[in-house]
Amino acid sequence: MPLLAAGTVAPAKHLRQKPKLRSGNLVRPDSASTIEGISAISQAVDPQSRKAGEGEAQRTAPFSFRLLASDGHARRGEIATAHGPGATPAFMAVGTQATVKGLASEAVRATGADIVLANTYHLMLRPGAERIAALGGLHRFMHWPRAILTDSGGFQVMSLAELRKVEDKGVTFRSHLDGATVELSPERAIEIQNLLGADIAMQLDECLELPASRPELERAMRLSLAWAERSKRAFEAAPPQRALFGIVQGGDDPQLRMASARSLVAMGFHGYAIGGLAVGEPQEVMLRTIAEVAPALPADRPRYLMGVGTPEDLVEAVARGIDMFDCVLPTRNGRHGLAFTRFGPVNLKNARHAGDPRPLDEGSACPAARDYSRAYLHHLVKANEMLGAILLTTVNLSYYQELMAGMREAIAVGTFAQFRAAASEGWARGDLAPV
Amino acid sequence: MPLLAAGTVAPAKHLRQKPKLRSGNLVRPDSASTIEGISAISQAVDPQSRKAGEGEAQRTAPFSFRLLASDGHARRGEIATAHGPGATPAFMAVGTQATVKGLASEAVRATGADIVLANTYHLMLRPGAERIAALGGLHRFMHWPRAILTDSGGFQVMSLAELRKVEDKGVTFRSHLDGATVELSPERAIEIQNLLGADIAMQLDECLELPASRPELERAMRLSLAWAERSKRAFEAAPPQRALFGIVQGGDDPQLRMASARSLVAMGFHGYAIGGLAVGEPQEVMLRTIAEVAPALPADRPRYLMGVGTPEDLVEAVARGIDMFDCVLPTRNGRHGLAFTRFGPVNLKNARHAGDPRPLDEGSACPAARDYSRAYLHHLVKANEMLGAILLTTVNLSYYQELMAGMREAIAVGTFAQFRAAASEGWARGDLAPV
Repeated sequence: MPLLAAGTVAPAKHLRQKPKLRSGNLVRPDSASTIEGISAISQAVDPQSRKAGEGEAQRTAPFSFRLLASDGHARRGEIATAHGPGATPAFMAVGTQATVKGLASEAVRATGADIVLANTYHLMLRPGAERIAALGGLHRFMHWPRAILTDSGGFQVMSLAELRKVEDKGVTFRSHLDGATVELSPERAIEIQNLLGADIAMQLDECLELPASRPELERAMRLSLAWAERSKRAFEAAPPQRALFGIVQGGDDPQLRMASARSLVAMGFHGYAIGGLAVGEPQEVMLRTIAEVAPALPADRPRYLMGVGTPEDLVEAVARGIDMFDCVLPTRNGRHGLAFTRFGPVNLKNARHAGDPRPLDEGSACPAARDYSRAYLHHLVKANEMLGAILLTTVNLSYYQELMAGMREAIAVGTFAQFRAAASEGWARGDLAPV
Repeated sequence: MPLLAAGTVAPAKHLRQKPKLRSGNLVRPDSASTIEGISAISQAVDPQSRKAGEGEAQRTAPFSFRLLASDGHARRGEIATAHGPGATPAFMAVGTQATVKGLASEAVRATGADIVLANTYHLMLRPGAERIAALGGLHRFMHWPRAILTDSGGFQVMSLAELRKVEDKGVTFRSHLDGATVELSPERAIEIQNLLGADIAMQLDECLELPASRPELERAMRLSLAWAERSKRAFEAAPPQRALFGIVQGGDDPQLRMASARSLVAMGFHGYAIGGLAVGEPQEVMLRTIAEVAPALPADRPRYLMGVGTPEDLVEAVARGIDMFDCVLPTRNGRHGLAFTRFGPVNLKNARHAGDPRPLDEGSACPAARDYSRAYLHHLVKANEMLGAILLTTVNLSYYQELMAGMREAIAVGTFAQFRAAASEGWARGDLAPV
């Protein structure tokens, strides 16, 4: 299987040109942030998705990554999957249990999302990967016709499961739902992700919290490499249009990180993730690690920073060469009354919003940020109304996507430094400016 | 104030004609069940609604009711309000705390709703009627540019508040939120509803649970009549385009009901509600009471059955001359995993749906009923995901609106009896038919 032949690098002289999409009849990722957008995609990409009882449509477009522009270390690119493109730098909304909490798929798409992430750990336990496969795969199950990335389940085993035991063969744990004993090996993690039908699968890895001792970090890194090798072998049975990413581990130790990266690159993956960050270390350690690891990864493959982060984290990581992100912050914080805006975070629980007629951001492209007063959002949050969570989740995902789109545009025209400075100034300004 | 001059009765020979709307540039209530629909309305009816900091637009269109057709006792009509029309028979979704739980206003409109109900009791306690008025009124606050009916607060005082004391002057109670002592008189109930900006306000009444003794029923009925008189006087200060409905009480006692209806009609209201039903009595008692009271109400005024009910209740009450309904059943049961469909209720919690690839109703106009398998809905409900509540609320409100639209059409063409029989057959069929 020609795993390394999938990516293509645009010649340097084309770097500043407007990106071209491979599939002419796909909706442009930057312009399709509408209900109509997802309907068009639904018909163009996934004509079978509405018919129950059929197998998943056979898709033959191969996974690929094109680097379209760069500006310093920041990169503008385009992922192509059998379920449509993903403009990078990309933020992937988290749809843990086959749903981005509080939003129907059309609403997720309307925020500007190309790709969503789903959690293997949760779905293998409920409703089960075999069940989802029997129902036509995860895209049909959750009515999301665009690209899906699944994690391997490893991270949640470490953070959620009880009585876990990590061995060379894999990890054994007790389900947090019913206490059942479950085994997860590199091979089973790939099998599950294949059953789900993920466009991008992740190798099983072991992710430690920081701080951790060097021997512990080295042990987990070496185990993750062994699992990477086995994941890659297991993935040879996957349909050819799907992709597998390896995961760089090694904690905050530069030597371990470089050893991990070099070994993974030697194996060859469609893309490379940096795992084991944003797990307790200071931001500067995270950014230093990214700056060290990213240049060791091939320029023609996407680089995915797992589980990160704040708007500032995203901009700083893009500045260091990262292409993809996922994080629960915009969705989880939205459910808890916090809005992310161009002018920094706004805690709608705060009583000072109770009589404020201003919307969160009149200049936003997101109706939820324009159509409702802070007073109304405060009321919904205080009254524990679902609509508060829904609107703030929408606002936050839209702001994250707006930030990514802004970075993509800035990189394409060579103004990323200015964009970075302006974003930083906006966050510092705060939302307390007079009406 | 010419309270009785608002309604007009269409001549009998026109009863079977297609309804004509009064405002040519309003979106047709039966055809506007789309996101586009609410935008058009939003611009046509409420151009100021998106601008913060302005007072509520002055609206001058008077409240009116036109009877457009009848078929047996069933009536097809049209309410006109300053915030757009309401086709009757109408089902009003319940937006207790200034939100129909789980749905943004565009999504409520997309189910086909013309009018929503909001609860005075909840809003007077949080965020407060004066606060909502200062923010431009309830329509702007909840971003709902169409008609709003508010109840008087009386029913919730009886069912939710602690330490309530009913006296001639009004009711004193402790807030269920913070224990504060609050007074609600007929005059204050009207003042609150005026501050909210309700298109249709309700008189304060006392609603008893059934069974209740005849002396108790008579006392509450007479008190409600005295409060009706005071409510009407207080309402003279309201802007002229708004409407006030009186409420017939009297429990399951026909004599008391008739006395209540006659006295209210003598006072004169824009519309008449039947309260104090669906409060513990058998369905046949409710239907018998409706059949007795409805003919005692003026034909040229809308008749509103408060807090009712199941799909069957709605059809049977329309058959007895009711024009308007509100009920928490479609929203509350949706949040608890129950779907209302043409083929009866479906409990998505049930394990038999776990592998069922069929949507709830392939023939529905509601995407939530078509685009998601029962297996997915079951998964969402079992996983306690917000999206389960959101989709089932959408399915249920859409089905209720579809049922109302079906009744309206059948009454207009004189086939209500057939519609009623077919609906009943559908519910009896169940959803277990082979795929």
